[in-house]
Amino acid sequence: MSARILAAVMSAPRRPIEVREFPRPDLPAGAVLVRTACSEVCGTDVHLWHGRLAGVPYPIIPGHVSAGTIDATRGPVAGIDGSSLREGDRIVFFDVHRTCGRCRACTVHRTPTRCTARRVYGITDSAADGLYGGWSQAIYLEPGVAVARLPDAVSFEDYIGAGCGLITAMHVLDRAEIHAGDTVVVQGTGAVGLSVVALARLAGASRIVAIGAPASRLTLARMMGADEAFDVTATAPSERAERIRAETHDEGADVVIEAAGSPRAVEEGLSLARDGGRYVIAGHYTDVGDSAVNAHRDINRKHLEIRGCWGSEARHFLRALSILERQAASVPWRSIGERRYGLHALNEALADAEAMRITKAIVDPWS
Amino acid sequence: MSARILAAVMSAPRRPIEVREFPRPDLPAGAVLVRTACSEVCGTDVHLWHGRLAGVPYPIIPGHVSAGTIDATRGPVAGIDGSSLREGDRIVFFDVHRTCGRCRACTVHRTPTRCTARRVYGITDSAADGLYGGWSQAIYLEPGVAVARLPDAVSFEDYIGAGCGLITAMHVLDRAEIHAGDTVVVQGTGAVGLSVVALARLAGASRIVAIGAPASRLTLARMMGADEAFDVTATAPSERAERIRAETHDEGADVVIEAAGSPRAVEEGLSLARDGGRYVIAGHYTDVGDSAVNAHRDINRKHLEIRGCWGSEARHFLRALSILERQAASVPWRSIGERRYGLHALNEALADAEAMRITKAIVDPWS
Amino acid sequence: MSARILAAVMSAPRRPIEVREFPRPDLPAGAVLVRTACSEVCGTDVHLWHGRLAGVPYPIIPGHVSAGTIDATRGPVAGIDGSSLREGDRIVFFDVHRTCGRCRACTVHRTPTRCTARRVYGITDSAADGLYGGWSQAIYLEPGVAVARLPDAVSFEDYIGAGCGLITAMHVLDRAEIHAGDTVVVQGTGAVGLSVVALARLAGASRIVAIGAPASRLTLARMMGADEAFDVTATAPSERAERIRAETHDEGADVVIEAAGSPRAVEEGLSLARDGGRYVIAGHYTDVGDSAVNAHRDINRKHLEIRGCWGSEARHFLRALSILERQAASVPWRSIGERRYGLHALNEALADAEAMRITKAIVDPWS
Amino acid sequence: MSARILAAVMSAPRRPIEVREFPRPDLPAGAVLVRTACSEVCGTDVHLWHGRLAGVPYPIIPGHVSAGTIDATRGPVAGIDGSSLREGDRIVFFDVHRTCGRCRACTVHRTPTRCTARRVYGITDSAADGLYGGWSQAIYLEPGVAVARLPDAVSFEDYIGAGCGLITAMHVLDRAEIHAGDTVVVQGTGAVGLSVVALARLAGASRIVAIGAPASRLTLARMMGADEAFDVTATAPSERAERIRAETHDEGADVVIEAAGSPRAVEEGLSLARDGGRYVIAGHYTDVGDSAVNAHRDINRKHLEIRGCWGSEARHFLRALSILERQAASVPWRSIGERRYGLHALNEALADAEAMRITKAIVDPWS
Repeated sequence: MSARILAAVMSAPRRPIEVREFPRPDLPAGAVLVRTACSEVCGTDVHLWHGRLAGVPYPIIPGHVSAGTIDATRGPVAGIDGSSLREGDRIVFFDVHRTCGRCRACTVHRTPTRCTARRVYGITDSAADGLYGGWSQAIYLEPGVAVARLPDAVSFEDYIGAGCGLITAMHVLDRAEIHAGDTVVVQGTGAVGLSVVALARLAGASRIVAIGAPASRLTLARMMGADEAFDVTATAPSERAERIRAETHDEGADVVIEAAGSPRAVEEGLSLARDGGRYVIAGHYTDVGDSAVNAHRDINRKHLEIRGCWGSEARHFLRALSILERQAASVPWRSIGERRYGLHALNEALADAEAMRITKAIVDPWS
Repeated sequence: MSARILAAVMSAPRRPIEVREFPRPDLPAGAVLVRTACSEVCGTDVHLWHGRLAGVPYPIIPGHVSAGTIDATRGPVAGIDGSSLREGDRIVFFDVHRTCGRCRACTVHRTPTRCTARRVYGITDSAADGLYGGWSQAIYLEPGVAVARLPDAVSFEDYIGAGCGLITAMHVLDRAEIHAGDTVVVQGTGAVGLSVVALARLAGASRIVAIGAPASRLTLARMMGADEAFDVTATAPSERAERIRAETHDEGADVVIEAAGSPRAVEEGLSLARDGGRYVIAGHYTDVGDSAVNAHRDINRKHLEIRGCWGSEARHFLRALSILERQAASVPWRSIGERRYGLHALNEALADAEAMRITKAIVDPWS
Repeated sequence: MSARILAAVMSAPRRPIEVREFPRPDLPAGAVLVRTACSEVCGTDVHLWHGRLAGVPYPIIPGHVSAGTIDATRGPVAGIDGSSLREGDRIVFFDVHRTCGRCRACTVHRTPTRCTARRVYGITDSAADGLYGGWSQAIYLEPGVAVARLPDAVSFEDYIGAGCGLITAMHVLDRAEIHAGDTVVVQGTGAVGLSVVALARLAGASRIVAIGAPASRLTLARMMGADEAFDVTATAPSERAERIRAETHDEGADVVIEAAGSPRAVEEGLSLARDGGRYVIAGHYTDVGDSAVNAHRDINRKHLEIRGCWGSEARHFLRALSILERQAASVPWRSIGERRYGLHALNEALADAEAMRITKAIVDPWS
Repeated sequence: MSARILAAVMSAPRRPIEVREFPRPDLPAGAVLVRTACSEVCGTDVHLWHGRLAGVPYPIIPGHVSAGTIDATRGPVAGIDGSSLREGDRIVFFDVHRTCGRCRACTVHRTPTRCTARRVYGITDSAADGLYGGWSQAIYLEPGVAVARLPDAVSFEDYIGAGCGLITAMHVLDRAEIHAGDTVVVQGTGAVGLSVVALARLAGASRIVAIGAPASRLTLARMMGADEAFDVTATAPSERAERIRAETHDEGADVVIEAAGSPRAVEEGLSLARDGGRYVIAGHYTDVGDSAVNAHRDINRKHLEIRGCWGSEARHFLRALSILERQAASVPWRSIGERRYGLHALNEALADAEAMRITKAIVDPWS
């Protein structure tokens, strides 16, 4: 890699993405420089571009989940499995590069995603501080980042196709406690929803119903394992509810998972779960307004369990890798990443993502 | 007991309660006739009088949780502990006298409170069918009702003071999973809320905050174990929130329990729970309208868990008895039942309960 | 069906099975007479023949899990889904035909398999009391037995091939809490072990290792989903342990399930689970002696969780049906039932089962 | 504090404890020097002295749980609550001063007590590396140690009386999942067992039975909340079992907790738990041999759950502080620490502890 590194920078909300040159960083002991193979544009990047997240230190280099090969290390660096990492190794890393491990959220409550010291590649670090994002030819991994070898069975395209959607979906799966034989409804067919569909299938769900749009994503949902995929724009809630009840002894779904990010989805999701069922809310990453919830009908009498799900932890990253290693051949994660964009095409990628013309844009910093 | 039995009948919604005479019933094998010692007027009875519950076969004899002595049995009758029951035994019984034990709610989902065949003394049986309620000098226990001896350490007044509130609260406690050291907020200081306060204390909560009204119930809440009791009519939600955060490392409560039955309580409760905490909704027995819930702020980002809680099961009745046997002396359950009313005074009792002039009316069918 | 019904009777331990004639029973209201299509010989029957179970009222008609068509009903009979059952319907039923639903085991502890009133077809009822077993041309279903229509997608052979092994395995699955991506070791390749392998696969296990014998069952284990199958008679425990550690980051298995019924299996199983893992013991249906357990090394320091699993509940029967309905085509349950035996050949069937010449004998009372 | 610091050193197994002088250490940024108020001699120290733990880098300064005041800090040091720590603050710290936070034990399995990088004050660090133990006038807290202010309501004597026994017992409580109304048996009346008794009481157990010795500890057990305390040397297992069954509907205890460290205790504990109950094994810190476990009778048929419990986590330390803050006045933890020993008397303290002449020795490095 040359001494000058190109990276795409989001200088401020709603400003065009610019490609800038950065110097090759000096590495302290334990640090790694990664030659990026690919990164992704996910829904969070669209939120970042609109300025919907608080406390972001623009300018930033976006791109939180990324993959590449080790260009250089300084001194011995251990992978999370304890092995020694070397130049040329194909690696991936957990994008959450810091939680304190000492606060009450980290320890007493075991909710490290709520640690106030949490920092995430592509989101929480300024471009002035270095190569902390994947929309770049190189990524600086500071000492302590959880780095893992990418298993041979997993291509870069498999990994990025799954991307942060799969890692988030691993956390959703924890919260959802799907049992073999369950009927599962997944609201939303973006990157998270599609991975939830695949994981619900792996976890033994007997019937999986996806609700989303557009048609291309519904096709993907079926490829990922959905038995049925409703176009949310072309079917009425009552029609969906009737169909689901007809397939579930008139009970409703055992588990409903929200990955849609709309207040109406919450209202519908509550009605689709059976009495004593479970509803995981994972798609409200930003504030899109209130839902009207009838506590008597939707929660109390229904004896329902509702669980919010925020972010992901190292264990989800590591288990996602295990799943990919075994299932990359049988689950079409790579199909989620439809189109590759060079660094100069990322304004277009953001526009395509927001308009849902693509499911996920792959960032290829060398094209 | 004479051949003519007096019972108070609710003939239709909003009609005055009338006292009628009933014949002493013939007992089939396995049945029990109970000479009522006392019963109660609870919030459900107020709902029944207003006609807020669906499918009630008026006229009915209200009174679901009751206690008395065995007047007669037909053939050998076993208590739930397997012992033989005899005339003169002081007994209590689980008011839910039928669930099918075979449907998917009873078996697969283990939510027998959602069994469609569920029947409850004082609510689901017509006075035309017999003495199926406690506002009566005698109660007919059909074969199969779960009957237990009242432990010697527990007086009738202890049992009815706790009443259905304690049994419901046992279920709430299951759902709440309180850990020793937790801060618990209880919304509502009616019979359920007060028992929840006592059980939270027994379960090791380090700090218990009650929110309710009127002053007399707040005094009771403190007697039951609340460290702090806010008058919901005299303090602002922001004041309550600030105080609770100040006492919890600025986090909010570990567990919040709703036993208030208002849409605003749900909105406040969501805000009082800490990130990763738990919120049990138990007070929305009837439909009082929608709450505005922000899924981003209140559930998703908060990584919150919300659990509805409906009705109670035999295991809650039995564990309530165990708790009473050990704790009747140390927890002032009997203080919840403030005033005794004869059968002819039950219109007044309903009015007093609705106006919150009393916490709980005790029904004494012999006064 | 004629007025004379043939059934195979186990008159006493170790006595030859005899075929006797029984009269067609009169049906009380709510009862069902089933024309048996097939039943099974399982390990329990071998135990029964050796007299290893206490309190069995010989003579008995063995055969607990069976399937058939309705020959006659008396009055309306509802299936567990609430539908009306009619003559000619293909049905199956839960072999546990009575638990009291009122004792502390049934209610407080939610362990109905430990109810002392529990009764099971083929085991707990004397032949003198009627057709309470499946080794018979007809089975008497007393009122209250949980009867279900066999889904069209499931043949009698699928159902009996899975048989009581699958229903027990459903309970094991509950106790095992397998997560997608887990490595699971299954000790024992009898009917329970084979179904556990299939369910572990359905529940998302990434790697499944079976340990058993003989070769024919190891082949079946691979067909059911095992990635690897060790012949317990041809490999050393140390060899198995090394291989499993090599495949699990040197940790050991996430979940180990015992369905082998030997004291040595318990000792090996404890050593194969990883620190913080789970070990389900399900194969010790009878007393085969003590295991030497080092509480320091195997449990305490290992931070292990061990769970016994006894019998099965209606929910496992019903969920087994759901699983079969969806998976009968993709999981070769029917291959477990290798050979059919008529009523006169059941001595041979017991001998073949005990000698492990077959995996499971199918009883065909009409051949 | 002077420039020369006295500390008691265990130079090798079974060698007399010696008092040596150490230089006052230089502090790197973020480090703290604590003026020890008191430390403890616990069972682990007896094990250390006998050389029963592997990999201990003798010579060491023992003493893992300790308390004191801040003598000096280098630069700003934050307490675990985020506040700034200053000279003179009364503080305590979590004795586990390092886990990696990145390995599979720390992340995927959430069992940080099994992290191979785990280091503990008083055990895993050589005296050659500095003041890493509490049997010393000063303790060196390296950067990153979890330090907390000791709440005003808690005296040093309360804290050390509870000591590592309480912190371990907090973990046991997690594993035990005691419900209000449960009967709990605690095997062992050492520091862990006594704190388990107190926590079981706080968690709502209705009946607590302790089994231990000698008489002085049984008296303490009753003070901590036991309803009954059996002298293990003066009563037979059958007598204990009969009494417990008589008090539990002939079922056995809901939860049994082993904190005794003998193979026979495990055998008895399995027999004392009820069907479907729970058994937590926490006392086998070292290898004392095998228990004979009948998997049929004790685990499988009993549908039992057995959970090992190893070490403790930061969350247990922090919750122990919360419990102490609220309960120091009502639970006599300080009574566990019976006698104070100066640094020159620690050989005697070890001998007294091993002979059970005292329950816990308090180390006062200034006497």
